[in-house]
Amino acid sequence: MKKALVLASTLAFTAGYTASASAETLQTRWADIQVETLSEGLNHPWGIAFLSNGRMLVTERAGHMRIVESDGNKGDPIEGLPEIKVMRQGGLMDVKLSPDYENDQIIYFSYSEPESEGSEITSTAVAKARLQDNTLHDLEVIFSQYPKEQGGRHYGGRMIFSADGEYLFLGLGDRGDRQDDAQTLDNHTGKLIRIYPDGSVPEDNPFVGEEGAQPEIWSYGHRNIQGMDIQPDTGLMWAVEHGPQGGDEVNLPEAGKNYGWPVVTHGEQYGGGEVGIGFDKEGMELPVWHWTPSIAVSGMAFYDGNQFPAWQGNILATGLRGQNLARLEMDGDRVIHEEDMDLGQRIREVRIGPDGNIYLLTDHENGKILRLSPAE
Amino acid sequence: MKKALVLASTLAFTAGYTASASAETLQTRWADIQVETLSEGLNHPWGIAFLSNGRMLVTERAGHMRIVESDGNKGDPIEGLPEIKVMRQGGLMDVKLSPDYENDQIIYFSYSEPESEGSEITSTAVAKARLQDNTLHDLEVIFSQYPKEQGGRHYGGRMIFSADGEYLFLGLGDRGDRQDDAQTLDNHTGKLIRIYPDGSVPEDNPFVGEEGAQPEIWSYGHRNIQGMDIQPDTGLMWAVEHGPQGGDEVNLPEAGKNYGWPVVTHGEQYGGGEVGIGFDKEGMELPVWHWTPSIAVSGMAFYDGNQFPAWQGNILATGLRGQNLARLEMDGDRVIHEEDMDLGQRIREVRIGPDGNIYLLTDHENGKILRLSPAE
Ligand SMILES: [Ca+2]
Ligand SMILES: [Ca+2]
Ligand SMILES: [Ca+2]
Ligand SMILES: [Ca+2]
Repeated sequence: MKKALVLASTLAFTAGYTASASAETLQTRWADIQVETLSEGLNHPWGIAFLSNGRMLVTERAGHMRIVESDGNKGDPIEGLPEIKVMRQGGLMDVKLSPDYENDQIIYFSYSEPESEGSEITSTAVAKARLQDNTLHDLEVIFSQYPKEQGGRHYGGRMIFSADGEYLFLGLGDRGDRQDDAQTLDNHTGKLIRIYPDGSVPEDNPFVGEEGAQPEIWSYGHRNIQGMDIQPDTGLMWAVEHGPQGGDEVNLPEAGKNYGWPVVTHGEQYGGGEVGIGFDKEGMELPVWHWTPSIAVSGMAFYDGNQFPAWQGNILATGLRGQNLARLEMDGDRVIHEEDMDLGQRIREVRIGPDGNIYLLTDHENGKILRLSPAE
Repeated sequence: MKKALVLASTLAFTAGYTASASAETLQTRWADIQVETLSEGLNHPWGIAFLSNGRMLVTERAGHMRIVESDGNKGDPIEGLPEIKVMRQGGLMDVKLSPDYENDQIIYFSYSEPESEGSEITSTAVAKARLQDNTLHDLEVIFSQYPKEQGGRHYGGRMIFSADGEYLFLGLGDRGDRQDDAQTLDNHTGKLIRIYPDGSVPEDNPFVGEEGAQPEIWSYGHRNIQGMDIQPDTGLMWAVEHGPQGGDEVNLPEAGKNYGWPVVTHGEQYGGGEVGIGFDKEGMELPVWHWTPSIAVSGMAFYDGNQFPAWQGNILATGLRGQNLARLEMDGDRVIHEEDMDLGQRIREVRIGPDGNIYLLTDHENGKILRLSPAE
């Protein structure tokens, strides 16, 4: 059931807060939630990572990365980024801190990498660099999706470190025009990738040593992975991906398994054919959950903070078209309930802050960081 | 998402159909569905079983059982029923045919049985009898819930035969005033029961031989079981039950397990306390799915006909307060999607007909049998 934003928007002025922040209250089953605009004026913000003292590292798809202070003030663009081809869905995407960031100051970010300077032939790449004095140092590209492709769609781009910090997972897409490639192992299209943080390939990846297979592949048959997180109790990596028209999916991607795209889907085929190839096939995995019609699922996070005790272990997922926050109650790998909350804005990503509050990025040219905390 | 009944109600006159039948179209994700009123004027119909030649055996909570012809015409009340105490939620409830009905003409039905003639101290009982010439013969009460209780609430009453026809399952309730009894094994309150069709107790029931335990108990900690069915592929028995305010549940009740009531629930405690005792506890089972807020879940059936191929294996569940048909897509014991269809009438039960169409009973004094078939 849709929960709408209630109470008229009120203006709240916080001491030391220069921008006027609007706060609204969202009524949900277990909590009344205050929705505050923490920062705005970000150009399609895509990824966010929490630094110390309430500061945040934020990417803008338009090709900028900035530190946003705890009061919402935005720093100057960080210098030293590689060439990024900003085109349609492509640009600067996700950002994660090294598991040992306090000591090494290393960050990882994903972006659309051109084949050569200015080229519109691109693919998703991941770079690492040391962040110091608002500048990236020792930049190194640790992964480039093969092959590069014309067009600016379905880059995937979301990343997450494994629970032990040993592996970096990267979700990719089918680039829009290369659907069938998602079913073959000789490319990275429509794949989920597992690498070491230096870009090298773990020897126990499922297709290492298989003739012609790309060794970075963890799982395949994905359409366009947009959100990823690690489940708190199990340490398992989960991912959400866009379906075609319907069939947005939550998956629990296991090593070597086939998640079906474009052979099976709960969405409609292009042109509106119903069912088409069907929902399921031997040797392919059903999703754990799907949204049909599509919410255009974007980010996902397991809630594991202390601000919303009733939501502990729940999946929070966001929608672009759905302009929503979906809450999935879990029992292990089963969804046992969904609550759908209407936010009235396209949402790109959701992360849980160190303070246990929920942070959302809105997908607009004047994009915002929203903070969700318990209302008094 | 709620699908509303669309298209203005149209009157359809079928040859040989004396009552005027209204047909509406329900638009759903995978099918446009014609909703026809097959029969009406039934006083709170509760259970339905399919006889040969399209005839149906239907119970009315008010204490009548009738054969309804394939054209919707209602026969006279069947004679020979035992004394039934019709009071609040109590009365004549479910009806099932013997697995060998073609040869033995035996039926099983559940009802509120008074302690003595005219008494308001009642509990749920199951009787068997041979149906011949519109009369019950050789009537035998094969189970009586212990203890009997004042008040007319939470009788449970739904029944299902196991896939092999060897066992009869009966879902019971906490009688409203005996919540705590659902956690102790010395009574049938808030229990799911497994017996042989002659009323005797299977030796491998989980609490047979346990001092003081009622041997008919299969599982416990249920609030008020209202729907039951057997999953086609697995042969497993599933059940739905009412929560308090919220927390209507789908369960997959396993032998000897505790389904939590009244210790854990996703509903609210009486008086409106939130969370209260919490959702889960060691040694108690979470539901496979819950509706919160409550739809006041009533019947449930696995779809296994050939009229709606995209729904194969799905759970269909109905709501009294929700006035809805909920469709749960399944992957084994996981719900992977819900579609909610608004029917605008309180629905008591859902069964799949031998023709693959879906039959619903509406819970009104002028209750109806609705038939759902694919629209042209
Ligand atoms: Ca899939
Ligand atoms: Ca499969
Ligand atoms: Ca329960
Ligand atoms: Ca438990």
